[in-house]
Amino acid sequence: MGEFELIQRYFTRPVRKAVLGVGDDCALLQPRAGMHMAISTDMLVAGRHFFADVDPHALGHKALAVNLSDLAACGARPLAFTLALSLPQAIDAWLAPFAQGLWALADAHGCELIGGDTTQGPLNICITVFGEVPAGQALLRSGAQPGDDLYVSGTLGDARLALEALQGHLQLPEAVLASARQRLERPTPRVALGQALQGVASACADISDGLLGDLGHILQRSGVGATIDTENAITLIAACACWTGANGSFEHTIGSPRALQCVLAGGDDYELVFTAPPARRAAVQAAARASATPVTRIGQIDATPGLRLRDAQGRPVDGNFASFDHFAR
Amino acid sequence: MGEFELIQRYFTRPVRKAVLGVGDDCALLQPRAGMHMAISTDMLVAGRHFFADVDPHALGHKALAVNLSDLAACGARPLAFTLALSLPQAIDAWLAPFAQGLWALADAHGCELIGGDTTQGPLNICITVFGEVPAGQALLRSGAQPGDDLYVSGTLGDARLALEALQGHLQLPEAVLASARQRLERPTPRVALGQALQGVASACADISDGLLGDLGHILQRSGVGATIDTENAITLIAACACWTGANGSFEHTIGSPRALQCVLAGGDDYELVFTAPPARRAAVQAAARASATPVTRIGQIDATPGLRLRDAQGRPVDGNFASFDHFAR
Repeated sequence: MGEFELIQRYFTRPVRKAVLGVGDDCALLQPRAGMHMAISTDMLVAGRHFFADVDPHALGHKALAVNLSDLAACGARPLAFTLALSLPQAIDAWLAPFAQGLWALADAHGCELIGGDTTQGPLNICITVFGEVPAGQALLRSGAQPGDDLYVSGTLGDARLALEALQGHLQLPEAVLASARQRLERPTPRVALGQALQGVASACADISDGLLGDLGHILQRSGVGATIDTENAITLIAACACWTGANGSFEHTIGSPRALQCVLAGGDDYELVFTAPPARRAAVQAAARASATPVTRIGQIDATPGLRLRDAQGRPVDGNFASFDHFAR
Repeated sequence: MGEFELIQRYFTRPVRKAVLGVGDDCALLQPRAGMHMAISTDMLVAGRHFFADVDPHALGHKALAVNLSDLAACGARPLAFTLALSLPQAIDAWLAPFAQGLWALADAHGCELIGGDTTQGPLNICITVFGEVPAGQALLRSGAQPGDDLYVSGTLGDARLALEALQGHLQLPEAVLASARQRLERPTPRVALGQALQGVASACADISDGLLGDLGHILQRSGVGATIDTENAITLIAACACWTGANGSFEHTIGSPRALQCVLAGGDDYELVFTAPPARRAAVQAAARASATPVTRIGQIDATPGLRLRDAQGRPVDGNFASFDHFAR
């Protein structure tokens, strides 16, 4: 199978929104008047972001999901994406399910494949995604204000717990691992919630490197600090794998510090962390309902820079919660 | 050096055209009214598209150049690009010249870096580029008509000749190799010519995989054929390395068949191949002058499908001129 046959067989479909799709030197998009185009790109490398033998259907899903998650964080509506793919070999048994996983998520979000590149090389998937958002309405990292509430969507920690289990660092019951692994391999980009938060949230980011790290970006760019109620954070946003001990307690499964680490700094969750003024609490809950996405208030934004963790009694919680960094040693 | 320090140090500069650049979940572009956004993406893999030890300054140039060449082929004006970079290690001595080569070409074309991704892994560079072109004015591969003239910009073959020499398959005089190597490692995207051909050319593509292969895309999508005068093609568009024998003849340096192969199917030239009605010959020459880019008429478009090569006497020229295919065996 040659390069052009590969593209034709797996990655060429008619476009509806784009002016021109796959097959020319460039694709053409016609943004609507009054809209900004939101653009993000993510590169996934075998052995770094996924196991080389991961289910290719799941990988097709995830490669687009992590990009859609960036659109979600900006409140943008998905339009289109490009796919650049480096593959050791062009094998139908891999390409067919990879393409299926990709198309299934793309179709679910009305996001068209408009172009790309394929080449032979170490497995590497680079997607660039395009969305639209009304001018001035994009959710940025820089808008958090002191006094704002701090929220997280869904639950955190499962992806990291699954990763640790798959790497042999801890053991999870089979059913729990299967569930956690779904979160690791088939994350759900919070696209509907992001759009529902337009005009409601004051700042937003997606959680790819861990809550504390990605919240740190909001704090840095907004010039503010935050206090997180870790008791609430654990109780309400800790993912299923943290809660499956004999008595359903946190400690019994994997031990509290490790679970806390996964929840607060696990990475690969693709939930949203966002802020909104207390006066908008009803609007936040309405956005959560409209998008059928659970949302939990986990703390607040402070004028004092820095990130503080407090337990239920208001005492500082210690911990070295490093977020994921691809070049950190 | 961590991931965020790397981005901050080498890949973050203020944006002028974009609404929002590097540092948030998405970048934001505001396309002008009446404009289409042209989008293209190219992935360069070490060992496949470049030697792993290539001068990083040249690599930074080339990674963007091959993308700008796609915009040129559509007649689009460059606006912005994203950069996804997988690196074995974050080394200043590599990153600094790579970034310099990238920025130098970006600045020359007013093309802003608005976002990206960095990760650890086998060396891989994926750039997605954005340009604008007035609605309906993009040069496509599908517009060639029987009777149209067939043109090529600049010269062809040097890049492939340099590659063959660097791989030890042939020998070139040192000064000739140095010149040919410039074409391989620092190609010139024909951005000004592409824009000048708006409203003049009927079809256009850039030559990345070899003239015959990329012309083939025009023929296929336009539903036409073409005849190339190979005598003219060689005489007028053959690159410097084909002409450096003791008596300045084609054959004396590397032999005619190999040179013809490099000119017609060499790849990595990043010139434009385009068509235009004979009535627009003066306009084509004006576009060439306005963009200071040599343009040569090398044949014509026919109603009969297929690609025919003729010598000066009109006799068919045989040859197996396969274009480059990343998955062909």
